[in-house]
Amino acid sequence: MEQPISRYPVPRLEDLPEDIRARIRAVQEKSGFVPNVFLALAHRPEEFRAFFAYHDALMERKSGLTKAEREMIVVATSNANQCQYCVVAHGAILRIRAKDTLVSDQVAINYRKADISPRQKAMLDFAMKVAFESYTVGDSDFAALRSHGFSDEDIWDIGAIAAFFALSNRMANLTGMRPNEEFYLMGRLPTS
Amino acid sequence: MEQPISRYPVPRLEDLPEDIRARIRAVQEKSGFVPNVFLALAHRPEEFRAFFAYHDALMERKSGLTKAEREMIVVATSNANQCQYCVVAHGAILRIRAKDTLVSDQVAINYRKADISPRQKAMLDFAMKVAFESYTVGDSDFAALRSHGFSDEDIWDIGAIAAFFALSNRMANLTGMRPNEEFYLMGRLPTS
Amino acid sequence: MEQPISRYPVPRLEDLPEDIRARIRAVQEKSGFVPNVFLALAHRPEEFRAFFAYHDALMERKSGLTKAEREMIVVATSNANQCQYCVVAHGAILRIRAKDTLVSDQVAINYRKADISPRQKAMLDFAMKVAFESYTVGDSDFAALRSHGFSDEDIWDIGAIAAFFALSNRMANLTGMRPNEEFYLMGRLPTS
Amino acid sequence: MEQPISRYPVPRLEDLPEDIRARIRAVQEKSGFVPNVFLALAHRPEEFRAFFAYHDALMERKSGLTKAEREMIVVATSNANQCQYCVVAHGAILRIRAKDTLVSDQVAINYRKADISPRQKAMLDFAMKVAFESYTVGDSDFAALRSHGFSDEDIWDIGAIAAFFALSNRMANLTGMRPNEEFYLMGRLPTS
Amino acid sequence: MEQPISRYPVPRLEDLPEDIRARIRAVQEKSGFVPNVFLALAHRPEEFRAFFAYHDALMERKSGLTKAEREMIVVATSNANQCQYCVVAHGAILRIRAKDTLVSDQVAINYRKADISPRQKAMLDFAMKVAFESYTVGDSDFAALRSHGFSDEDIWDIGAIAAFFALSNRMANLTGMRPNEEFYLMGRLPTS
Amino acid sequence: MEQPISRYPVPRLEDLPEDIRARIRAVQEKSGFVPNVFLALAHRPEEFRAFFAYHDALMERKSGLTKAEREMIVVATSNANQCQYCVVAHGAILRIRAKDTLVSDQVAINYRKADISPRQKAMLDFAMKVAFESYTVGDSDFAALRSHGFSDEDIWDIGAIAAFFALSNRMANLTGMRPNEEFYLMGRLPTS
Repeated sequence: MEQPISRYPVPRLEDLPEDIRARIRAVQEKSGFVPNVFLALAHRPEEFRAFFAYHDALMERKSGLTKAEREMIVVATSNANQCQYCVVAHGAILRIRAKDTLVSDQVAINYRKADISPRQKAMLDFAMKVAFESYTVGDSDFAALRSHGFSDEDIWDIGAIAAFFALSNRMANLTGMRPNEEFYLMGRLPTS
Repeated sequence: MEQPISRYPVPRLEDLPEDIRARIRAVQEKSGFVPNVFLALAHRPEEFRAFFAYHDALMERKSGLTKAEREMIVVATSNANQCQYCVVAHGAILRIRAKDTLVSDQVAINYRKADISPRQKAMLDFAMKVAFESYTVGDSDFAALRSHGFSDEDIWDIGAIAAFFALSNRMANLTGMRPNEEFYLMGRLPTS
Repeated sequence: MEQPISRYPVPRLEDLPEDIRARIRAVQEKSGFVPNVFLALAHRPEEFRAFFAYHDALMERKSGLTKAEREMIVVATSNANQCQYCVVAHGAILRIRAKDTLVSDQVAINYRKADISPRQKAMLDFAMKVAFESYTVGDSDFAALRSHGFSDEDIWDIGAIAAFFALSNRMANLTGMRPNEEFYLMGRLPTS
Repeated sequence: MEQPISRYPVPRLEDLPEDIRARIRAVQEKSGFVPNVFLALAHRPEEFRAFFAYHDALMERKSGLTKAEREMIVVATSNANQCQYCVVAHGAILRIRAKDTLVSDQVAINYRKADISPRQKAMLDFAMKVAFESYTVGDSDFAALRSHGFSDEDIWDIGAIAAFFALSNRMANLTGMRPNEEFYLMGRLPTS
Repeated sequence: MEQPISRYPVPRLEDLPEDIRARIRAVQEKSGFVPNVFLALAHRPEEFRAFFAYHDALMERKSGLTKAEREMIVVATSNANQCQYCVVAHGAILRIRAKDTLVSDQVAINYRKADISPRQKAMLDFAMKVAFESYTVGDSDFAALRSHGFSDEDIWDIGAIAAFFALSNRMANLTGMRPNEEFYLMGRLPTS
Repeated sequence: MEQPISRYPVPRLEDLPEDIRARIRAVQEKSGFVPNVFLALAHRPEEFRAFFAYHDALMERKSGLTKAEREMIVVATSNANQCQYCVVAHGAILRIRAKDTLVSDQVAINYRKADISPRQKAMLDFAMKVAFESYTVGDSDFAALRSHGFSDEDIWDIGAIAAFFALSNRMANLTGMRPNEEFYLMGRLPTS
């Protein structure tokens, strides 16, 4: 009863355009395996390029949010969207970035009760608002975040990451994207 | 009480990177004005490039969906997300693409009662499912769409457009993006 | 694929009771056409009389709300109820009453971001509360509205209009009432 | 801590227009007391007249629905709207009309498990749909109801009663309308 | 069309273990009849014992909440869960405990408008939060309740009763548990 | 920022009644640590006894459901209730019972896409229905489950476990119950 990694055809690496193949090889060298999101989205090379360009623009940029904080946004909103791929894969990344074996499960299930700071809870409150009722975003939300020390650029980061993973969660659910088994255990051992 | 076009600073054209300036000039020449989404998102050039690359990959590709049908997906899901910019701007584009002065308001308010085909209603049922409960997408949805003549690639298009505008709606609501006044009337006159 | 104006039989003018025929002729003379709500509801003359008596009692009375403000309540709550007839028809009336070509689409899609006053937004917050969770209405709502200068009679007007269009939206959705094509463009041209 | 019968001023009988006073006296003679809805709504005579004209047009007309069935619609939708006045007052009327001491509480709390016929449950399924998601009403709903023997006119009755009490529930919640104590026990004694 | 008291087999008293039979006889002597929850749950003796042990631990203990207040929690949350058995049976108990013929219907339909104290409304606000969104319970809820004079042990009582009837409501809905007719009238007569 | 294991005082083992202390020691010997739920609930010995008696009656009984299947119900419904303790602790138990390192995260996030059988998905569909809209449970649900080979006693088990953890999730959220760190890694290593 094991599911395939995507409802759609998964291209062979050798059939992919050179730039996409290079990107996939780079992640494979770094991680030791190819995360399935790269294979599933490679079915459509143009969309693949835009997706990862967007992802990197948000997740790799210099920001007032740490990389771990950005992953918290992904994990919290993705569980609320019931996106298996994103919670499992980004849960692994969050554990590694935060050097914390517990934080991902805590944030995924109920960030309000996680071992994170009040500032981080305010960040996740806003991320959830953008994810689920962005039409209510208003000046009072900006004021609340500023009172926690977030700049307007930080607020863009929070909102844009929640928005980008709104897209990503839906693509994963549409394609039935399957998380690699490697992610489940990554960052869970104290020495990892 | 008129709102600005974005909560965030809007760059001057002359301060933008050349490729972005060129893209904006091209749309200005074609439309006669610069849609505010280009100015609001230009605040972050890298994200701008990824956003429009993604947009074009979905909205300009050769597809089993007509361009008007793709705009229907945008209009229906964006009203459900209460995204002022996307409903007004893409409502204008839909009227023009469909050469139909009524279809945008009908689809925005309640696509189930719009003057569109049963196939198009099935397309929008699925788009709404991806937009609001993508975690329930399953084989029976694919079967239902295939029975209306949609290929699996068409289904990817429907789902991916709904997913991309999940992102787009949230960015517009985050930035308080204001639709240009030009859009409101575009395509509403019988001869337009 | 054009829908009929009602799921139910639409009476011929000459078969209607004299008072109803007179009312319809009066609106036709004033507007240049007969709005379909008059024809669809004339299927049941007694209900027709009560419906329009109620409508006029609320929408024509002397009130602390302007006529445009009352139409804002109709447009905002009717879009949330996905009522095609009411958004299209009352959107037209709102544009004319407010002498504003943009306000109806703004208020329909997301009144929180419309070019209206804070007082009008407070009015619409309350109208939405009455429309969707009237069981929570309490003293603090009255206090909030009074702080914007609304009298208790004004608050009755806001709530009663939201309540009346809760009825109206449901009747339009029940009968599949179709908006006249004339409404779509009314009030959209700067000189209109 | 007992609440007043309305948040708004309640007129004295002698200050009311003659027709309204007559109507109230008639109901008082028949029932032995004046139901508070008459007093609370008399604050606005024009709306009072339209309200009761509409009510009577639906609840007193000759119909394929029995009077008890019409009251079931009121009771089921009003509890879902958390309208104290309508559940208590119409619960009393339903007990009397149905000559059944149990049916009102059963229908109010969960009509799906009430001692009513499958046809009546289908009627209430549709009434709830009109009350809470009328935008989804479509041909398949009409087909389902016809299979239970309902005519299209009966379906109008079901939908219109649900729609009218959408208005009524909101007015009762807006005004904080208090049910008369007499209603609580009415029709609960086997001989009543 | 009268429903059975449970979807599951109902044991005969003489076939039950002695302790359960004794418990049932005790309640029968006190009440004059056997409430159906005892018969329906006796289908599984071990669960029966745990259920009533839990029930008594919460409902019979010495507490800062009166017995009537505890029943209010049951009645308010059970109507929101559409649990016919619990609203009817505990509505009867609440009327008797509170010596108030009206309070049960008021609290069931909309406790915000019931003739109860602000302290009791705060108690029910929290009970509803535990019943429907317990994941949001936080320090500010405890502070709000303490400001009404509730101790932390009282707050446990409120939350635990809401939690226990979350279980109870679901069991009643699963088994289709039917309230005894005796409950409907109990406590409704002024002298009762 | 690490949370305590409960908002309420946690008793010392030596202060507990003998039967509770014995129960806790037994679980400690078996597991190597004391799961926090035992300590948090020991604050109220009577409720503790009823809680675990109920738990064991459902989770330890001979049933048509395997022990792993029963844990699936806990994990799926507890994540939907955002209960950190239950997802983490029962996720560990499920991994061990199912001898499957992946199943818990899959079932928690979106059981519809987990590597489980169609019969198990039907079981979880019903468990979610009992957990979130038990008022709609009806004969067609029983028929659907029987078609997957479930007996009526199995259906009771599914529903009663969903109901019991509705209670359990609320108690964990009320008390802010913190999962032991040991649970996070349990059953995740292939040899465990």
